[in-house]
Amino acid sequence: DVVPITRALISVSDKSGIVDLCTYLHSRNVELLSTGGTARALRDAGLPCIDVSDYTGSPECLDGRVKTLHPKVHGGLLGVRGNARHERDMAENGIGLIDMTILNLYPFGATVKSGASFDQCIENVDIGGPSMLRSTAKNHAYTTIVTNPDQYDEVRACMEKNDGGTTLSLRKKYAARAFALSAAYDSTIATWFGKQLGDDGPSSSSVVTRVYRPEFPLKYGCNPHQSPAGISSLLNSELPFKVLNGTPGYINLLDAANAWLLVKELREATGLAAASSFKHVSPAGAAVAVPLTEVECAAYEISVEDASRLTPSALAYLRARNADPMCSFGDYAAVSDVVDEATASILKREVSDGIVAPGYTPEALAILTSKKGGKFIVLEARSDYVPEPVEYREVYGMTFSQRRNDVVITREHMTRNVVTKGGATALTDDAIRDMIVASICVKYTQSNSVGFAKDGMMVGVGAGQQSRVDCVKLAGRKVSTWYLRQHPKVLALQFKKGVKRQDRVNARVRYIEGDFTDEERVRWEAQFEAVPEPLTGAEKDEFMKRATGITISSDAFFPFRDSIDHASKVGVSYVAQPGGSVQDPEVTSCCDDYGMVMSFTDVRLFHH
Amino acid sequence: DVVPITRALISVSDKSGIVDLCTYLHSRNVELLSTGGTARALRDAGLPCIDVSDYTGSPECLDGRVKTLHPKVHGGLLGVRGNARHERDMAENGIGLIDMTILNLYPFGATVKSGASFDQCIENVDIGGPSMLRSTAKNHAYTTIVTNPDQYDEVRACMEKNDGGTTLSLRKKYAARAFALSAAYDSTIATWFGKQLGDDGPSSSSVVTRVYRPEFPLKYGCNPHQSPAGISSLLNSELPFKVLNGTPGYINLLDAANAWLLVKELREATGLAAASSFKHVSPAGAAVAVPLTEVECAAYEISVEDASRLTPSALAYLRARNADPMCSFGDYAAVSDVVDEATASILKREVSDGIVAPGYTPEALAILTSKKGGKFIVLEARSDYVPEPVEYREVYGMTFSQRRNDVVITREHMTRNVVTKGGATALTDDAIRDMIVASICVKYTQSNSVGFAKDGMMVGVGAGQQSRVDCVKLAGRKVSTWYLRQHPKVLALQFKKGVKRQDRVNARVRYIEGDFTDEERVRWEAQFEAVPEPLTGAEKDEFMKRATGITISSDAFFPFRDSIDHASKVGVSYVAQPGGSVQDPEVTSCCDDYGMVMSFTDVRLFHH
Repeated sequence: DVVPITRALISVSDKSGIVDLCTYLHSRNVELLSTGGTARALRDAGLPCIDVSDYTGSPECLDGRVKTLHPKVHGGLLGVRGNARHERDMAENGIGLIDMTILNLYPFGATVKSGASFDQCIENVDIGGPSMLRSTAKNHAYTTIVTNPDQYDEVRACMEKNDGGTTLSLRKKYAARAFALSAAYDSTIATWFGKQLGDDGPSSSSVVTRVYRPEFPLKYGCNPHQSPAGISSLLNSELPFKVLNGTPGYINLLDAANAWLLVKELREATGLAAASSFKHVSPAGAAVAVPLTEVECAAYEISVEDASRLTPSALAYLRARNADPMCSFGDYAAVSDVVDEATASILKREVSDGIVAPGYTPEALAILTSKKGGKFIVLEARSDYVPEPVEYREVYGMTFSQRRNDVVITREHMTRNVVTKGGATALTDDAIRDMIVASICVKYTQSNSVGFAKDGMMVGVGAGQQSRVDCVKLAGRKVSTWYLRQHPKVLALQFKKGVKRQDRVNARVRYIEGDFTDEERVRWEAQFEAVPEPLTGAEKDEFMKRATGITISSDAFFPFRDSIDHASKVGVSYVAQPGGSVQDPEVTSCCDDYGMVMSFTDVRLFHH
Repeated sequence: DVVPITRALISVSDKSGIVDLCTYLHSRNVELLSTGGTARALRDAGLPCIDVSDYTGSPECLDGRVKTLHPKVHGGLLGVRGNARHERDMAENGIGLIDMTILNLYPFGATVKSGASFDQCIENVDIGGPSMLRSTAKNHAYTTIVTNPDQYDEVRACMEKNDGGTTLSLRKKYAARAFALSAAYDSTIATWFGKQLGDDGPSSSSVVTRVYRPEFPLKYGCNPHQSPAGISSLLNSELPFKVLNGTPGYINLLDAANAWLLVKELREATGLAAASSFKHVSPAGAAVAVPLTEVECAAYEISVEDASRLTPSALAYLRARNADPMCSFGDYAAVSDVVDEATASILKREVSDGIVAPGYTPEALAILTSKKGGKFIVLEARSDYVPEPVEYREVYGMTFSQRRNDVVITREHMTRNVVTKGGATALTDDAIRDMIVASICVKYTQSNSVGFAKDGMMVGVGAGQQSRVDCVKLAGRKVSTWYLRQHPKVLALQFKKGVKRQDRVNARVRYIEGDFTDEERVRWEAQFEAVPEPLTGAEKDEFMKRATGITISSDAFFPFRDSIDHASKVGVSYVAQPGGSVQDPEVTSCCDDYGMVMSFTDVRLFHH
């Protein structure tokens, strides 16, 4: 199935690597046909090449619009080798074999993006290129279609191995890619053209083509029986992450995407290093680098001295992990800044699946790649990555498309419409920061959701609920547990030596929750030097009264005052929500009753 | 902007209407160029037509592969009218104007579907057609590209109105459609070609092309600022639903897809009519048609007599809606069977956003389409719909592909590996049914999730949690509330006249939960003839001891016995879970301690 290359037609807009490849082809005695700028580039490099017009004998006319649309070109590409009649026809009509076409299409999307006029865009529609591409691809049993510089090395290697010929498997693979390129090219034109007719959105006159380049297969999808599965990039764009270590799974990567966007936006909005801790595509915690109080140091098991030496990234992750440390067990972590040794050391002692960050110091990378017996997943995020504005998603034969949720949450969202008494002057800078943190957090939490924040740290995230007040209750319970971890009786718990850190974390939470089963109580008590006295309901209530200055943000409006009533029980002072309910006035006056400050952000943040 | 038509090139695979149109063109003195079968058809009708080979003067060769790929054809299509140099070039080279191209591409998908071999499919790839189509469309400032018989009348009318010419607006519209056709054509080829490379799934050797046909735009996506948004079908397949009424939104349709799959699978697995009630892409409830007890009738506010007359669909929805009636407020409903008047009447009194079902009686449809001021969304599901096996989803520049979760949950999953004492003999038919119902339900619940079932009805669904035991606690609280709605003190609550049904539902739930704020208590008490005595914790605990025979299913294994301990408090007798934890033996012996029967299904059901 090897076909020798005797003549090649080259017409490329992207000239990178073309001289090297053609130098090689020339060394293999391949005759080079070319046009315009490509011919000039080859001649400048000292390579002999024949202009297509000379080759066809057809005079240059119509500004070169029909240069390659000629039987001598297409016959040379389409003739069936070994077919006696075809070979006779070719001989009689002076049609020589063309065995390889190297071309790429100047991306039409780039023309559009450059702000070109309608006429300029139309002028840029390539006619000759796609025709040659398609002829060569159709006849790939004999001809080789090369459409991208990233194929040049492979072409060369293949020819080198096959005495100057290419193999059928290479030609077939390249033909498939060529048709995909052609499809993508015309889809871009069709989509643009549809819009020119005055339709903003999709119209029945057009189709949408998404062309994906498979990047790596996954062992399976959401579940082991969901195979095949894989990750692809959009053709001509790259993935947002590089895999530095480990083998990420489907849910890991969903977590990584959301966790990374969350910290990236926190970083941009607050100017502080940020971290998040994901489980099942919602954050268990998230935080920015705000120093710890002494009591927090005790609750999070770090000495005041060690805490003072934490780098901002380490501090942010320590906080993110301590919102709900039981849920964060086995998390996927994200950090907004380059991960340093201090951050890696914090992660090292935690049970965690992987991390995404914009970079790693060599020391940090060494620590992380040795985690989980070398299987800890380490992703490097491209900081400047800008994805396509509209995303597509197939569910049961329906393809959902929507603009990404690219709203940027800013200070202005929190300050421009403070509806409670006193208005925006009642907001402290810390409160604004926490409102931003909580709102960005719910943006990446499965809906319905609310999130509570304090000191730049999420202290209760309520994900995936089906009523607003259920979210508040769920997350409110987490806030209570978080806050009660600072109760003197909790801090005073005396563990036996040898009880592991995660077991100490869990034991404290269970002490606070108090709803032991008999069997559990026995195991629980065995972890202590002496059986701790219970933390009574009254003690908990008393301590919770001290909680204050907490912020709540909701992904959609509060339909009734009940959510605010519940929030008041866990020390909420600040409320951020889109507003828009018929009950807004009642909800507002409820906030006023409790002395809370509430902002209407006008931005709904459902996430699915 | 009118351009007269002097010469037309015609090459169609679909010959319907072509003779009529060409008869008209001939009457307008348009010269007809044509090829092969089209030329024969025209000549048979007595129309003069010139064969393209004669026109170009280039001899027929290579089995006609390059007939139209000639400067005389493409120059005639691409030459710029009114451009002096172009006109001189054309005159000098004997290139005459071709003002119109009428062609259509034989659908490549049809060739593939006919079972053609690889070589036959490749042979069917049209080269000349797309080239002419693209040249004509590019030069639409002067040339008219007609690609479908449904355009012939319009072309004729336009020419008739414009003295034998076409208008720019017509040419532009047709050009846009032509590029869409070309894009779709090559996309079909590219997709087919990718599969031929021997990959079941995506591989690095190829690209994947998904071609979508926009079906309808959405007002916005998940949130109002996420516009544009829309729903498309995969090219050459249809949507799973027809919109009979209303304007579904993004989240409505996500709900509908999951809600429908849930009831369809319940129906197939149990043979009973099924219904589900969705909120935020998880079920608030789901059930199959099992008759109600007298106490349930009282709890769900239906008389025993009315209940006895419920059709299976109505009964299933009544149960589905009563798992968590506060959360089901504003739900998206799905019913497995044709919706009858009885079912529509149950829905009529509930606040609900829409429904999906395989059909509707005229009476039912009349009731539903008048709901919500005519805005109630009614979708008709195609019962025999089979989507593509692999689905694609774009998230932040990564395209996730995976095999759909098409596992069929059966009786065998519940009986083949009963790990507790007594083995499968300890399972009743009702228990097996409930295990199936609960497992299919968690299959369509956002992870982590567990679900509790009783009498074919979900009585507690815990969605979107980040630890297993949190799911159990969350759903367990819902089970308690559901069960306590049957407490004599709840059933005895005396509401004032005029209190609405949903308010009664909510008031009972709040009575059970008991955690009123002061403000709420005042409003709550005002709904009753006399202030009800509280339902004490002791009374609740006492009543909950009677709960029994409940099933729990988990979307992934229980990592510790704590989940079972918690489940024991709400009357669980049966457990379905995949198994696979290192703690399986401990979890099993825990079930044995409580006298529970546990099956390992070996099927994980994460859902994101």
